[in-house]
Amino acid sequence: LNYRLLNALEGKNYSGRPPIWLMRQAGRYLPSYMALRQRYSFLDLCHTPELAAEVTLLPLKLFPFDAAILFSDILVVAESFGRGLRFEEEKGPIIERPIKTAQDIEKLPEPNAEESLSFVAEAIKLLLPELSVPLLGFAGAPFTIASYLIEGQSSSSLSKTKEWLVKDPDSFHNLLGKISNLTIDYLKMQAKAGVCAVQIFDSWAHQLAPRHFCEFSLPYIKKIVEGLRDLALPTIVFSRASSLHAEKIAAISPTAISIDWSGNIAEIRKKLPNITLQGNLDPFILYGSKESIEQEVGSLLSAMKDDPRYIFNLGHGILPTTPLDAVHQLCTLVHG
Amino acid sequence: LNYRLLNALEGKNYSGRPPIWLMRQAGRYLPSYMALRQRYSFLDLCHTPELAAEVTLLPLKLFPFDAAILFSDILVVAESFGRGLRFEEEKGPIIERPIKTAQDIEKLPEPNAEESLSFVAEAIKLLLPELSVPLLGFAGAPFTIASYLIEGQSSSSLSKTKEWLVKDPDSFHNLLGKISNLTIDYLKMQAKAGVCAVQIFDSWAHQLAPRHFCEFSLPYIKKIVEGLRDLALPTIVFSRASSLHAEKIAAISPTAISIDWSGNIAEIRKKLPNITLQGNLDPFILYGSKESIEQEVGSLLSAMKDDPRYIFNLGHGILPTTPLDAVHQLCTLVHG
Repeated sequence: LNYRLLNALEGKNYSGRPPIWLMRQAGRYLPSYMALRQRYSFLDLCHTPELAAEVTLLPLKLFPFDAAILFSDILVVAESFGRGLRFEEEKGPIIERPIKTAQDIEKLPEPNAEESLSFVAEAIKLLLPELSVPLLGFAGAPFTIASYLIEGQSSSSLSKTKEWLVKDPDSFHNLLGKISNLTIDYLKMQAKAGVCAVQIFDSWAHQLAPRHFCEFSLPYIKKIVEGLRDLALPTIVFSRASSLHAEKIAAISPTAISIDWSGNIAEIRKKLPNITLQGNLDPFILYGSKESIEQEVGSLLSAMKDDPRYIFNLGHGILPTTPLDAVHQLCTLVHG
Repeated sequence: LNYRLLNALEGKNYSGRPPIWLMRQAGRYLPSYMALRQRYSFLDLCHTPELAAEVTLLPLKLFPFDAAILFSDILVVAESFGRGLRFEEEKGPIIERPIKTAQDIEKLPEPNAEESLSFVAEAIKLLLPELSVPLLGFAGAPFTIASYLIEGQSSSSLSKTKEWLVKDPDSFHNLLGKISNLTIDYLKMQAKAGVCAVQIFDSWAHQLAPRHFCEFSLPYIKKIVEGLRDLALPTIVFSRASSLHAEKIAAISPTAISIDWSGNIAEIRKKLPNITLQGNLDPFILYGSKESIEQEVGSLLSAMKDDPRYIFNLGHGILPTTPLDAVHQLCTLVHG
């Protein structure tokens, strides 16, 4: 096994270069993935262990990444609550019966992850013998999952969610609590099936003002991080608000923080010398010329290359139209 | 004239409470505005000096705001470049002929603000005799205007713009330069017509990674701030990136920085003791209960109330469905 990622999570990667993996590395920028999508729907790929395992492996055939991340979607947790989930080509995920009232929240079932999400454990078990790099599991953070359940689809301002949480914070906390419980069980199941570490994605937390971030996002991530502590499973927290709130996230003691593209990771490192940091490259950089990619990646590497607690990644998922050549160049630059 | 706002801009508001005005205070949350919109299109209101003046005055009839802001839209500058502008009820602004090539940028005219935007100067002149509070002028920042010209409409990720600026930074700089020149002339015209201060809105700058913010947003705001310096006209810079980049914005020496809702203004004040700060309240707070509004506004006021360099405002424009009662309560709380 390639231990570079696990070493960086433990703060002792002295190999001379950071490990690299990319959020959504098994995604639409890969022709091999698009070919599979001709034959199967996105949800079929998620729900079928053999296919999820196959997709997880696709990027590793092309690029020397130091980790695999299980192919799945954060919204399989929302699906477990029985509100319906489908994906539309243009719009992305749609929750078919969004949550509209406090009563809807009261009536949510308490699904058993081992039953409703067993297909994920099966995919992990199929993958393990095929891998020479660590396998990461993941889940959405409760705030982000709650937002999808309320908005019903991607939303650029989370109007319904933000209106809800100021009007009726109690029922919103109730929703967050239910999602947290399922998420802890879900990640425990992933750990038992064999993932080496997990990443928690709070993709929408940057929509929250600081007081709301501290009330509605962070405590539930903390609950998950603490719920997993006795498994000795490393946890990585990705939040689009991590540039702004890195110190607050560090205070809940995950193993690592994944930094979005909006801040400067070298400045964050000065404030937080002892925690593993990941990410920060704006995914749009990969649309640039060879020279500009070299300059931008070089600038990030010159700040972080020798840091034993750094994991190279983007500041958000890789974009669907990213040229493969740029990903090759990126890997070459990081591999030094 | 009520001098509270001008005093706060000069750093010497010792009146015991901050001045208050709200971004989009003359907007859709006002029934009187919606009544006018039954009879006139949004652009008619912008283009007709008598109507723009009338709309500007509407909020002052209901609320004890300490400033008026000219009713207009940042995209009248884009319109001056001849690319077509209309507003659709659901989608917001549409640029009819978005910029698609570097040649489109080369061929942009160099409009004369005194001609193409004279209706704005006329509205200002009509307003002055009617006002007992200072009148603010405004313009969009070049990066935000460039984004609209390229995207053609509001966009949650600015994909086309961000792809453009990494692929062809030179032509993007060319576009930003042209917009800056027109904007300086436009704001000079507003000053000559009688506004007391101007606000520059960089509503989309939070979509930029720090290196790009420093290359494509900030230098052009600086050019404008410096272009207005000899008029002794106070300048307020609003950016959705101001929580993240307040220190960098302060370094170009505007009179004031308007802080978005994503950061904590009290922490920013610690780093920047000598510049006027404005804003920071999340507009969604105004959907809360009386008690929660009192708590949230109270928390901001207890940090900033006695600060002689603070202007009360939201961290973004007031939302169209904000209850009038909440705005009344907000004014009462700020007036103490």
